[in-house]
Amino acid sequence: MPLTRHTERHFTSGETVRDIVIGMSDGLTVPFALAAGLSGAVESTSIVITAGLAEIAAGSIAMGLGGYLAARSDAEHYSSERRREQAEVHDIPAAEAREVTEVLGSYGVSAEAAAPVVRALQERPDAWVDFMMRFELGLEKPEPGRALRSALTIAGAYVAGGLIPLAPYFFSHTTSQALLYSIGFTLSALLVFGFVKGRFTGTRPVRSALQTALIGSAAAGAAFGIARLIGGRT
Amino acid sequence: MPLTRHTERHFTSGETVRDIVIGMSDGLTVPFALAAGLSGAVESTSIVITAGLAEIAAGSIAMGLGGYLAARSDAEHYSSERRREQAEVHDIPAAEAREVTEVLGSYGVSAEAAAPVVRALQERPDAWVDFMMRFELGLEKPEPGRALRSALTIAGAYVAGGLIPLAPYFFSHTTSQALLYSIGFTLSALLVFGFVKGRFTGTRPVRSALQTALIGSAAAGAAFGIARLIGGRT
Repeated sequence: MPLTRHTERHFTSGETVRDIVIGMSDGLTVPFALAAGLSGAVESTSIVITAGLAEIAAGSIAMGLGGYLAARSDAEHYSSERRREQAEVHDIPAAEAREVTEVLGSYGVSAEAAAPVVRALQERPDAWVDFMMRFELGLEKPEPGRALRSALTIAGAYVAGGLIPLAPYFFSHTTSQALLYSIGFTLSALLVFGFVKGRFTGTRPVRSALQTALIGSAAAGAAFGIARLIGGRT
Repeated sequence: MPLTRHTERHFTSGETVRDIVIGMSDGLTVPFALAAGLSGAVESTSIVITAGLAEIAAGSIAMGLGGYLAARSDAEHYSSERRREQAEVHDIPAAEAREVTEVLGSYGVSAEAAAPVVRALQERPDAWVDFMMRFELGLEKPEPGRALRSALTIAGAYVAGGLIPLAPYFFSHTTSQALLYSIGFTLSALLVFGFVKGRFTGTRPVRSALQTALIGSAAAGAAFGIARLIGGRT
């Protein structure tokens, strides 16, 4: 099972944009919600800052390292499946030829019509293996070096996103004042980010902006309610 | 761009397992790290509990709702691309036939050998569209009803995972005592979860267990260090 978040296919804007989207989506949302939640329960901005920075550290490392290991694991999965296909093409070519016929048969291509394709693949075992990887298994070759770059991009975007809702707590005296600025900053950032994300992902930008702001607001609202309910004003 | 986390292909254990893995990975890691971080900075277990529950609410909603919208957006992307392919197959069949020849040509199949396949597809326009979706665009048909089920599973797994590191804070008098139990509980849970995850995903279970525990420890260690540095003991 490929574990990388958001598999890229048919997406032209590159993997970096995708990794930024992954990191910033959560980075803008969760620290914002946590800070809002704590603002409902404590007076001291320093506790919110401490918790917020701890969350940003934890979240960025968990997402970055998680992404790194998932990408590595996908790459290993691809290699091991490719070795298995190579062995099968070499050891049991007749069974593999039948599989090509079956794959094409599932689209209504008769065995007779598929036969020239099978023969062409048999002449080029490497292309045959590539064909099976893509058409039988639906696996695409992972880009080398992707894991580390992806991890750093995701973690960096998470940190950048997370500092936006937290910034007002550095400059305000009370959590309730900071919360107002934090809501303003973060909703604006979510709307802009959602709009830009929509342009890249093909969702209508305005709708994407509203959806992104909705996720942030729902998460923050729930966190605020729960923290207020449980923590009270301490 | 498909936005769903961890696209499923060639994975036999079902999407539910995959959604549980997504939710529980972050649920075990981030609340654990946040609680550990705060334990390095505050004495009161009630602040850790408040922050922890606020984080669990925020994280589960952000991940669940994010997953829901991403799955919906993937389904819409698939539908719109399928309509485009249907129109192309209907309006410019000659160009689409050339594309089939090109796809097969990239695996060393000559235009001559591909011709019977092209003719077979031309007789069944629906299968032809399916063929283009999978082989030209690499898109797979999303399962209907997936978005909501996926969102609830991810959010539920996040909550279940997040309560494990937090539980000791309900029963302990000091954060430092709770932290010791939390580390014990969570490391055990991460090892078990990583092991089971490895069995399902095809990674070696022992290695998966150690990697999963490593992510949790690194995130918690960083959060603890940062919170201690900034927050001091208040």
